[in-house]
Amino acid sequence: MTSPTVNPSNAVQPIVWQRNRLRLLDQRRLPHETQWLDCDSAVQVAAAIHGMAVRGAPAIGIAAAFGVVLDLQAGRDYAEAERCLLESRPTAVNLRWALARMRQCREGGADVARLEAEAIAIFDEDLAQNRRIGEFGAALLPAGARVLTHCNTGALATAGHGTALGVIRSAHAAGTLSQVYATETRPWLQGARLTAWELVQEGIGGTLIADGAAASLLARGAIDAVIVGADRIAANGDTANKIGTYALACAAARHRIPFYVAAPSGTFDLGIASGAEIPIEERDGEELLNLAGQRIAAEGIGALNPVFDVTPAELIAALITERGVIQPVTPEAIAARLAAAPAD
Amino acid sequence: MTSPTVNPSNAVQPIVWQRNRLRLLDQRRLPHETQWLDCDSAVQVAAAIHGMAVRGAPAIGIAAAFGVVLDLQAGRDYAEAERCLLESRPTAVNLRWALARMRQCREGGADVARLEAEAIAIFDEDLAQNRRIGEFGAALLPAGARVLTHCNTGALATAGHGTALGVIRSAHAAGTLSQVYATETRPWLQGARLTAWELVQEGIGGTLIADGAAASLLARGAIDAVIVGADRIAANGDTANKIGTYALACAAARHRIPFYVAAPSGTFDLGIASGAEIPIEERDGEELLNLAGQRIAAEGIGALNPVFDVTPAELIAALITERGVIQPVTPEAIAARLAAAPAD
Repeated sequence: MTSPTVNPSNAVQPIVWQRNRLRLLDQRRLPHETQWLDCDSAVQVAAAIHGMAVRGAPAIGIAAAFGVVLDLQAGRDYAEAERCLLESRPTAVNLRWALARMRQCREGGADVARLEAEAIAIFDEDLAQNRRIGEFGAALLPAGARVLTHCNTGALATAGHGTALGVIRSAHAAGTLSQVYATETRPWLQGARLTAWELVQEGIGGTLIADGAAASLLARGAIDAVIVGADRIAANGDTANKIGTYALACAAARHRIPFYVAAPSGTFDLGIASGAEIPIEERDGEELLNLAGQRIAAEGIGALNPVFDVTPAELIAALITERGVIQPVTPEAIAARLAAAPAD
Repeated sequence: MTSPTVNPSNAVQPIVWQRNRLRLLDQRRLPHETQWLDCDSAVQVAAAIHGMAVRGAPAIGIAAAFGVVLDLQAGRDYAEAERCLLESRPTAVNLRWALARMRQCREGGADVARLEAEAIAIFDEDLAQNRRIGEFGAALLPAGARVLTHCNTGALATAGHGTALGVIRSAHAAGTLSQVYATETRPWLQGARLTAWELVQEGIGGTLIADGAAASLLARGAIDAVIVGADRIAANGDTANKIGTYALACAAARHRIPFYVAAPSGTFDLGIASGAEIPIEERDGEELLNLAGQRIAAEGIGALNPVFDVTPAELIAALITERGVIQPVTPEAIAARLAAAPAD
């Protein structure tokens, strides 16, 4: 168990396409092991998404797009590939968005090579979008900003750079960042395992806190901004994101600390009016009762493990997208920004 | 690793006095092992408090009282015993309160036998007070109440019955309880390890959630009341309690769910005007970075581990004490209730 090699130019690359094979960095084993999972079919990709070998809303959309390509290359059924991928996780809309884009391409008469190019385009666009999100977001932060983030929204959750963590990367590069606090993010410890790993790799560094400690840091004036990602954003701006996000938003609101959501436009679901319509995935309670194969909770107790929550638009200071910053967060501003040309 | 024996009449007894030895149930090893720690000196008791073999504000006060008795019985220096015990943990005031009571008794000319009787009285009074707190608190809850609690405030944290968990015990006995949600309480997992253990032992049962999930349960109307304990309550009602308490209070306030604090009068520190004066213990960041001897966080990351936070009085619907319920929480109501005869 040693620190990973520092490679600031392209530190983390969890999704690698090899023409007829998708290699996924197995995020269940990080930070202790760097192990790759080779997928040759949509079923394998769906299992990797459901099992959280690959996670993060943009990353699972990208992986799903390559998943259908794998099945088409092997002559398997398109509808069946799409179905198993769609069912792999319910909350993030990026999965549906990426698959809808692939389907549209196919219905337009595209062959396998064209669909492969489309999946690669989804990947490349995500990386470019995240760099723009990073720039827009960094510009919102004060000089010497002390930023709190939740879960992992970095290169591991995307094609690269990241969304909320992309803003932190860009702010670090611009020299405007003085401190990053990362919540450990129970139960899956995305913060302790993945965000911490990325922060160390990039030489940004940072400070891990228990999820429950964030409110007291906000109360004592230690934080200038909270930045999180999103798994689905409704037409009114209500945002589904990793469980614990809403608690941070409640505390930030109380202390009038700006609470930002960073996400590409593929994360918006304009087909739903509000967050009440977003399905919230509940995972096995065993994820809470055990850790790294060890039982941590008393035997016989029940567990409830919702893995996302919804933060109402009124608590969000701005939505940071690749098309620009949406502030204040209203249905009209969202519709206008998403209809406008990119980054106008 | 089996479920502990159910013994509803006196399920949990973590502090046992054996005339010239204090036996402490080692709470670091629960729920997997029931192991006792034998203390023959104040230094050993102080180490057990600092190391969290015994924890919970009332329990550490009781243990400290027996700690000075042990040193007096062995002919050791009183001031030295008191000093090492006072330094063992900074936030809970019960420790100071119990030691001040012992000192007053000694300055009144008490011999060792009388001081031993005083420590036993502190123990017995705590148990009786908790039963009264339980009754007062249970009366505040609606029929079929669904209650959320944090950390461990049960028999393991007190002489028996518990404070906030005592209210839950009493409500269960009165038949007014329908559901208990317990936060796991990172980083030490008092909820997952200790509260869950007590709930299973007593046949109350319950549901464990991640600390970050509480706000979303409050948002979806799944909880009728939040009840927590306290480590120190200032003259204005500001309450220091386990880290994560303040986040729960912020979310409960947003959803207008009553947020109750249950604590004996020994938890009040009328010598300080507000929570700003309460020293907040910060423990080693390793408690956050490792779990059960296993590294969970990425190597190289920093950690900040404040183990208490302060909830302002304005967010507390009522303080539940053995002398009655203080509602609304104002300096005047606190002063009046603490000056009044018990439970008048």
